[in-house]
Amino acid sequence: MATTERPESIAADVVVDAAAGARLLAAIRSALPDLRLLDDPVDRESYRNDETAYLQAGLPLAVALPETTVEVSTLVRLAAEHRIPVVPRGAGSGLSGGAAGIEGGLTIALTRMSRVLEIDRANLVVVTQPGILNADLKKAVAAEGLFYAPDPASYEICSIGGNLGTNAGGLCCVKYGQTRDSVLGLEVVLADGRVIRTGGRSIKDVAGYALTHLFVGSQGTLGIITEATLRLHVAPPPRSTMLAFFPSVPAAGRAVAAIIGAGLHPVTLELLDHETILAVDDAFQLGLERDAAAMLLIESDLPAAAATAELAAAVAACEGAEATSIVRAEDPTEADWLRQARRLALRALERQGTVRMEDVGVPRGRVPELLVAIQAAADRHGVRVATFGHAGDGNLHPNFIFEHGDPRAAELTEIVRDEIFAAAIALGGTVTAEHGIGLSRRAALVDQVGADVIDVMRSVKAALDPLGILNPGRVI
Amino acid sequence: MATTERPESIAADVVVDAAAGARLLAAIRSALPDLRLLDDPVDRESYRNDETAYLQAGLPLAVALPETTVEVSTLVRLAAEHRIPVVPRGAGSGLSGGAAGIEGGLTIALTRMSRVLEIDRANLVVVTQPGILNADLKKAVAAEGLFYAPDPASYEICSIGGNLGTNAGGLCCVKYGQTRDSVLGLEVVLADGRVIRTGGRSIKDVAGYALTHLFVGSQGTLGIITEATLRLHVAPPPRSTMLAFFPSVPAAGRAVAAIIGAGLHPVTLELLDHETILAVDDAFQLGLERDAAAMLLIESDLPAAAATAELAAAVAACEGAEATSIVRAEDPTEADWLRQARRLALRALERQGTVRMEDVGVPRGRVPELLVAIQAAADRHGVRVATFGHAGDGNLHPNFIFEHGDPRAAELTEIVRDEIFAAAIALGGTVTAEHGIGLSRRAALVDQVGADVIDVMRSVKAALDPLGILNPGRVI
Repeated sequence: MATTERPESIAADVVVDAAAGARLLAAIRSALPDLRLLDDPVDRESYRNDETAYLQAGLPLAVALPETTVEVSTLVRLAAEHRIPVVPRGAGSGLSGGAAGIEGGLTIALTRMSRVLEIDRANLVVVTQPGILNADLKKAVAAEGLFYAPDPASYEICSIGGNLGTNAGGLCCVKYGQTRDSVLGLEVVLADGRVIRTGGRSIKDVAGYALTHLFVGSQGTLGIITEATLRLHVAPPPRSTMLAFFPSVPAAGRAVAAIIGAGLHPVTLELLDHETILAVDDAFQLGLERDAAAMLLIESDLPAAAATAELAAAVAACEGAEATSIVRAEDPTEADWLRQARRLALRALERQGTVRMEDVGVPRGRVPELLVAIQAAADRHGVRVATFGHAGDGNLHPNFIFEHGDPRAAELTEIVRDEIFAAAIALGGTVTAEHGIGLSRRAALVDQVGADVIDVMRSVKAALDPLGILNPGRVI
Repeated sequence: MATTERPESIAADVVVDAAAGARLLAAIRSALPDLRLLDDPVDRESYRNDETAYLQAGLPLAVALPETTVEVSTLVRLAAEHRIPVVPRGAGSGLSGGAAGIEGGLTIALTRMSRVLEIDRANLVVVTQPGILNADLKKAVAAEGLFYAPDPASYEICSIGGNLGTNAGGLCCVKYGQTRDSVLGLEVVLADGRVIRTGGRSIKDVAGYALTHLFVGSQGTLGIITEATLRLHVAPPPRSTMLAFFPSVPAAGRAVAAIIGAGLHPVTLELLDHETILAVDDAFQLGLERDAAAMLLIESDLPAAAATAELAAAVAACEGAEATSIVRAEDPTEADWLRQARRLALRALERQGTVRMEDVGVPRGRVPELLVAIQAAADRHGVRVATFGHAGDGNLHPNFIFEHGDPRAAELTEIVRDEIFAAAIALGGTVTAEHGIGLSRRAALVDQVGADVIDVMRSVKAALDPLGILNPGRVI
């Protein structure tokens, strides 16, 4: 049975043989003479971290930038032969260390595999390579009057491959689901270099085990996704947008519960707490209600009359929960303006110091309790926290804010986030709702799911990657 | 590497030691003296088949009817110790042989674990045991103003456990997704008797591998589901209902494409072909348009004004596709009447002879091509076929109709269905969209997904069930 203690030193998990690395590079150069392969120390250094620079990441042996599935397959096969770990990487915007380098490992960056292969309007699907940015995919299908729903806040800088690896969320999950819910099929390079296809363009398909679902969210530890068939929607109308301000966090929670309880399906149902409201207003002078304890951003993407009815019902829910003021956008420009309040939240906080963002989720009715627990944990240790997130599906991002160079930042972050993780778990929730386990939450995963589930996950990992070369030390 | 030839004789896959069986029964009686354990030959015989009596199923050693998870766990642990295969079984309404008996194996019928454990209105979830019938779960949550969406046509006689095992579909998948899309968490007895919990009540949770999704649709071959946490909706308004008749199959296909292409989300978008229309009208005198080549049943569950708009848009789509007539229900009673046309389809066909129902899916834009291929395959071999199904998501049920006692029925069924499977695969589709692989489609699964995918599925199976005791010979 696999051990399930909390890993003491994650960096020590993987040890790579340098001589084997040199042999691998020679084999790659021989097999793929045209491959772009970075082995200059400066280049390698720039692939050491993703957006989790605070984690102890390793310096890659080299960085390969394949352009075809065959190249990825060859790279993985050779890496397996030489027992060198492989780190698949998208745009490097991940928030869990899933693409952080492994010392002496081979990083495979999928950024050059960024083509849209087909937009199939009749079946409302797009077939794409993984390296494309989420925003570019959205733009490509929008040109055909179509809509790719998943919208991580980082959509302008994150890749579809990374979205698939983490099962990324975003603002419109509350209506359209997470990345997983848009995936119909995958092409995957297995740990021995074989290439398989799962699923296809059919919406319904129960032929065998749900391998597509298994690969989505596995952060490159079970296979490397080289192509995806994704579900599209007919482009919905422009959104109707409103803000509501509340005198207390529980009041905002009651509004969210009333909106969901009324059977409404807003496309956005986002919450900002008092600290975040202040930070956004300080930074961008949006004219928000600075005394409010919480603010909700609520949007509808229904056709005109239905959107009016949906937002009217949302207004009623907010008023019933004692909202102190409600602002409705009169036109798309004003809607963009209101939306800024949420879109700029992280940037506003980052003006105030060093920010460490977390990502916890609870059953959606328990958001007010989670907010109280987050504030209490931060207060206990004198840490400033500002929280915003996807209230409509129970997913909040507490942000710890430290003065630049604060020597206690790392230590206090660990302490406070462990207490918040414990609170989320106690509320029946999760230590990560959309960012992934990666390197940074492996210990918390054990706390959340327990030893037997870890054993099952390890057995799945061993079945698909018996040599343990695919992104080892990530997830489990 | 596992062999991936098409299995010649499925019944020969599993051989059980009779002496070990006797020892297992003694061990069960000793460990669980209060368990209801059927070992009378007549009782056992009644658990030999599910709704696939045409398959060669085995006579179970005994049938256990546990009432608690601890009992299921003990049964599986003892079966593992004695190396006796276990067949988990719900209501026995399955259409793929997933619950068909194994000669000398232990059938565990979950029918007594049928309690709703909790309806959690604040979080819109229900926690239930698996033995409850789908219709009873719907009724229990409807009493609280809530809605459990998945609705297999057999919802009055099928269990939630069976729905989870097959990832069952139904009529409202087109709007609400398959069973999988309503599952947030599971309690599962593993192959060694350990009990794990996956997921929970949070909508978003990316902590580790998607084990919940892996168990859903695995037909009891990876674990036995003993509890499920399922997502609910606020009960939608009563449905608005219409029928449209078309002079040709392609015309009906164009109407479906126009409805989906317009961004409509009807809750029902069902198709009946000419043979099915005639059979239903003959049997129940509904006054359908008997000359029509195809009929669509279209329903909206939006609030009143929006439903009116949605059906008006659907009418426009049907008229644009040259519908010969359109009937709109004026009230709920008339809606029920129109709905009968689809609900009674199978029963109507069964009045005409022995019916064998198949279950294929294609990308939704290819439904007309699939209909043509189904008819052509049947015509080639002189077999009567009537097709209906879920046109909105590309899932059709061809029904082969033979005179009772026709000696060539089994042979012709095999030939025609293999040709239809090949056609579905050629159209980028699947050999089963909602009924499951079970016993009956194992060979076709290999044809659809190929040897490498089968290998991956086998490695997952071996990882979770190393002794091969969980429903062996099913799925893979």
